Order: sequence, then structure tokens, then C-alpha cells
Amino acid sequence: MVYPDTFEGFAVFDPSPETWSSVKKYEFTPKPFEEEDIDIKIETCSICGSDAHSARNGWGKPNAQYPMVVGHEIVGKVVRVGPKVTGFKVGDRVGVGAQSQACLECKICKSNNEIYCPKLVHTFGSIYHNKDGSTTFSHGGYSNYCRIHQYFVFHIPEIFTNEEAAPFLCAGVTTFSPLIRNIPTNLPEGVKPKVGIVGIGGLGMMGIQFSKALGAETYVFSRSSKKKEDAFKLGADHFIATGEQENWIEDISYELDLILCTANSNENFDLNTYLKALKIGGKWVSVGLPESPFTVSPRSFMANACFMGASHLGSHVEMIQMFKLAAEKGIKPWVETIPMSEAGVKEGLEKCHYNKCRYRVALTDADKAFD
Amino acid sequence: MVYPDTFEGFAVFDPSPETWSSVKKYEFTPKPFEEEDIDIKIETCSICGSDAHSARNGWGKPNAQYPMVVGHEIVGKVVRVGPKVTGFKVGDRVGVGAQSQACLECKICKSNNEIYCPKLVHTFGSIYHNKDGSTTFSHGGYSNYCRIHQYFVFHIPEIFTNEEAAPFLCAGVTTFSPLIRNIPTNLPEGVKPKVGIVGIGGLGMMGIQFSKALGAETYVFSRSSKKKEDAFKLGADHFIATGEQENWIEDISYELDLILCTANSNENFDLNTYLKALKIGGKWVSVGLPESPFTVSPRSFMANACFMGASHLGSHVEMIQMFKLAAEKGIKPWVETIPMSEAGVKEGLEKCHYNKCRYRVALTDADKAFD
Repeated sequence: MVYPDTFEGFAVFDPSPETWSSVKKYEFTPKPFEEEDIDIKIETCSICGSDAHSARNGWGKPNAQYPMVVGHEIVGKVVRVGPKVTGFKVGDRVGVGAQSQACLECKICKSNNEIYCPKLVHTFGSIYHNKDGSTTFSHGGYSNYCRIHQYFVFHIPEIFTNEEAAPFLCAGVTTFSPLIRNIPTNLPEGVKPKVGIVGIGGLGMMGIQFSKALGAETYVFSRSSKKKEDAFKLGADHFIATGEQENWIEDISYELDLILCTANSNENFDLNTYLKALKIGGKWVSVGLPESPFTVSPRSFMANACFMGASHLGSHVEMIQMFKLAAEKGIKPWVETIPMSEAGVKEGLEKCHYNKCRYRVALTDADKAFD
Repeated sequence: MVYPDTFEGFAVFDPSPETWSSVKKYEFTPKPFEEEDIDIKIETCSICGSDAHSARNGWGKPNAQYPMVVGHEIVGKVVRVGPKVTGFKVGDRVGVGAQSQACLECKICKSNNEIYCPKLVHTFGSIYHNKDGSTTFSHGGYSNYCRIHQYFVFHIPEIFTNEEAAPFLCAGVTTFSPLIRNIPTNLPEGVKPKVGIVGIGGLGMMGIQFSKALGAETYVFSRSSKKKEDAFKLGADHFIATGEQENWIEDISYELDLILCTANSNENFDLNTYLKALKIGGKWVSVGLPESPFTVSPRSFMANACFMGASHLGSHVEMIQMFKLAAEKGIKPWVETIPMSEAGVKEGLEKCHYNKCRYRVALTDADKAFD
């Protein structure tokens, strides 16, 4: 069978260490087409750290299901719209991020927090609950098509190429949301907020640019100074190589309103020291999802009444705000491209997982991969 | 020697499990009298959980020094004021809390956050840095006199007896500060903030009353329902016995703006479940100081973008705000009294440590104990 009955993607069949990146073509049945759904012919899908995590079952989900097609930074063209779809028509260039369903009726959804809806469905590796009572396993964007509720589909501003647009859909909004929610807006006139961004990768490069665009004096933290020049090109005002400057915390104690941590691991990560960089009542927000728990001394919090938390993706409203700001300010991710294929996906996933890209890989030409 | 050359107090001599509460009279030399200092003849000192913690060296401070006179909820009369003291005169009834020195010059102090000044000195068990270059070990309020910088001395509203006033000075302001700082003030008109108070003890009884007085719908959490009636008397709108109601979290998921945790221990404490009670972006603030670290799953934070933090005491400005609010609203601690003596201190410390009081013990008649 073919579209619209089945879609085809490059799937991970086995998450074990030897095979996680060896994808193969895989035909799957999408969720039933519902009245608010949009079918998108995929052109480009960039590679998020979560793709590699999920391909490896890095979070150890007991119910993870393979074959799994990953990918949730998707750009393509609308090829079909349901009868209740408004604002999209066939031919529109659109994007899809990491969320593709929520109840849209609970108090959380109604408060523009549908990313935290208990009925959240992720674009891949999750379970759709369909209106007809059936369920469908969700597959991602290393595919020829995707079928998504209109609330989770977004217009792409013209100034962005496909590969520039794609990383906004997860990495972009994942950093934009905690910044827009937590950068203080009640500082005295003339006092700029100060924001720290920990880590320069797919998330960090977006966070640095958004922090600047949102008016914050921006401090970038990295273990070594290898990425120092890149940090300044992205807009950093200050750069701190935590592994090279002994007592680095001394110059920055009690300075920052907010630290956005994009690091994906807690190993050798000195959270208790980072917390000292926060102003009284400042916030540390993790957008990486480490595979191990946080361990924090109560005294670290008591020293400056700081807070620690995390953030997940960004909302529909924030996605639109983000694209508007990015288009206005000329914010763009740095992207390498690889044409989508079995070999291309393998190369891209491994570059991502082993931090070998600067700072995102986009899989292009999806339309050619499945012809 | 006697006052003003030396003071006398009931001191812990040995923090070991058999002897920590067996205090004995002890004569000590106070810090030099400086131009902003006030000498206070102590009448009443109530017993804070920190007194018992410190008497037992519960936090395992390697440099803890004994003999140590504990006590930092002190009420008495001014007997001497330094030449630069303003607003206090001999005979005034005043109080002193857990902080007795800070630099008062750094950016933290200047922002009314002197409780987080790196040069903070606690009223007992800490080291004064004197203007003449010397240092003095600080001793607390189970004593006949104390000598405190005017910034850390507060007038007591007339409506409170000594024993009613004393617990405000630590337990009161320790709960008032995180509430006034963190109860959201930007909710839509007509929407009340919702605050949870975990634990009913010396801190919890104050937190419940302040939460109500600050306009919040107040949820009280306790392991059993033994203190349910007390919680309602103190002003609770809702009571949840977490040890008796299976799945207690279900009714309260995503409901609270703020949880103030007064529990002093992390043992058997299911932080990850409590965090589910928070609204999106809600805050969990610990004012107890457990002896072990917090361990939290990143997913607990991601589920609702919540924050976890802690708070330490309350500032000079907040102390004054708190007494004003308490006097206006008739907020009072529930206090048992025991006359100060070696036996009285022992009884009081043990009642406090083993949670046998409802909900504070005040040591009274200090003036008679040292005649």
C-alpha cells in the first residue's frame, strides 16, 4: 500500500548499542485521518538529541516499542486538510515539533500549557488515542508523510529555508519557552536581566540567541574554551570555561537571574556550584533530560533562596511567538545537511549523539528518499 | 564577673546522644559593645527546631564548638544602646531572631536580602567579626543578656505577650518570607492563590496562618489525621492526611501555586509525588533543613515545569511587615511555657526534638533564672 493508507519511514529496529543507528525502511499505518488533521509531505527533518536518546532507549522506557521512526523537527508541505482545519491549505509550507496531540480541553490545555497535558502525545514513540476509540503508535519525521492535528502544525516564515526552520520546532521552542516564562520582567528601569546558558549544542545555540533577543545579558558556560568563538558569534556577552578556570564561580556568584541548562547528563556536573551563580530567588532550569536523578544539598538552595526546575518543549502560543521573534531578529540555527537515506540517517544520528555536529544536522530531500 | 563584662546562659557542653539536652550554667564573654549595638536583658526565649539540631550537632558541622548556648527567638528589654542606635531606647520591649550580623554593605544586603549575605552571622553557634578585628563566638537566648546590632533588633507589638511574640522571630519570619516572596500576585481577578503547607509544627502553625492572612486558599498536608482539627483551627481550608489517603495526589494534581514544606527530614518523604500537586510553573519551597540531600527525578520537574527551592529565615524588612500583618490579623502562635532552668531547658529541648509540643515551647522568666 502507499499514501494515504500507509506511510514509510527510516526506522530503528533494535535499540541495542550496536544497532541503534542502523535504520531501515519501514512501512507503517498512520492514525485515522480526523477532521482537524493535516497530512504533510515531509521534505526536511532535523535531528534532535531526543532522537538518539530514543533510538538507544536511553531513558530505559520499559514499554518502548520498535520499530520506531524518530524525528520531530519536521518541515514539509500540506497535502490534505481535514474539514475542520482552518488557516492551512494544501501547498502551505509548515512545521511540526515534538508534540502532536493533547486533550485541548483540560485546565492545563486551556491555560496554554498543553505541553504539560497528562494526555500529551509525542510525535514519535507515543500512543495516539483516536476519536474512533482505537490507538496508534506515533512515528516521527524520518518519513515521507506525517498526519498531525492542526493545533500542532505551524506556518514557517518565508525567510527561513527548510533546514533553518526545522530546528526551531523542538530545540528552538524548548529553549524559548523557559526563557520567555522565567526571564524576570519586573527589574528596575535600566537593569538588564542576566541569563546563563550552560552548554553549546543544538539547544544551547538557540538559547544563546533567544536570550540576547529577549534583552538579557548572556553568559555562556562550557567545559572547555573550544566553542568560545562560536558562543560570541551566537551573541554571548560573556564566556566561562568551567573546566579551565579554577574558582570560576567567584566572579559570577549571585549574578544571574536565570540559568538555562542544556546539558544532557548529570555526570561530573557540579550543580551545587552552578546554583551559586544565581541571584537571590534566581532559577535554574534544565531543558536537557539526563538519564539519572538530580542530587542537591538543601544548603545549596538555602544559600540564595534559588530554585531548580525543568521545562518541556514549548506551547502552541510560544511556537508562534518564537517564529515571529526569530524572523524579526534574524535568529537562525547553524545547520549541516545530509540527504535522508539509511546511510544519511545513521551518519546524522551518530554525529548528534557523539556531539560531532556544529550544531544541528538536518536530513533533507525526504521527498526523494521514498520515491 | 557579671554583666556587662560577662553574660551567663544555659549551655550544651556535649552534643552526643546522651548529653545534648543536659545544659548547665555557663559564663561567657560577649562581643565588644559597638556603636550600633543594643544590650537586651532577656525575659523569654522560645525553642526552635534548630536549637535541638544544633545541640545534637545534627547537621554534622565539623567546626561546631561547645559549650554552646542556643536559642534565637528572644524577647526582652533594652538595657543599653550604642551611640549610633536610633529608634530604640532603654526599657523598650524588643525581639531578636536567628540572625545577628551581616556586612550590610554588599549588593545582597542592599537589596534587603541580608539573610543571604555571605557574611551572615547566626545568633548562636557562629562567629562575630568585630570592628576591632577580634572575633567572638555567638551565644543565643537561653541566657540573661544578649548584645545585638540594631538592624537585627525589632520592636514587639503590644498585643503580644512575650511568649506569643518569641516564635515570630524565627518560625514566623521563616514561613512569612517565602510566602510573601512566592505567592503569585499576577493571577486573574477573582482567582485566589492556592498554597500547600506540609507539616504542622512550630513552622507549620505559623505558615498556615500567614498563608490565610495573605489571601491564599490553604491546603495542609500531614502524614496522619491526628492534627486535622488543629489545622482547621489555624485556618486551613483543606486537610490531606497523606499516610491515610491512598492516591491522595489525584484530587490535588496541578492545583497549587506554592507548597511550603516545613518537614525537617527527607526520610520516607515522597517529594516526587508532592511536586505533582503544583500548577504549571509552581514552586516547592523547603524551610526545614533536612540532614540528607534531595534526590529528584528530572521527569518530576518536566511534568509540570515546577520548581524546587528553599528559603532561609526572613529579612529585616519582612520581619517588620510580618509583625504588622500579625498584629492586624490577630495571628498568634500556640505556645506552652516552661520557666527557664537547667531542667526546664532539657524538658523543652526534648519536647521540641521529639515533636511532643503543641506547637512551640517558650522558656520564660529568664530574668529569674540568673539572679
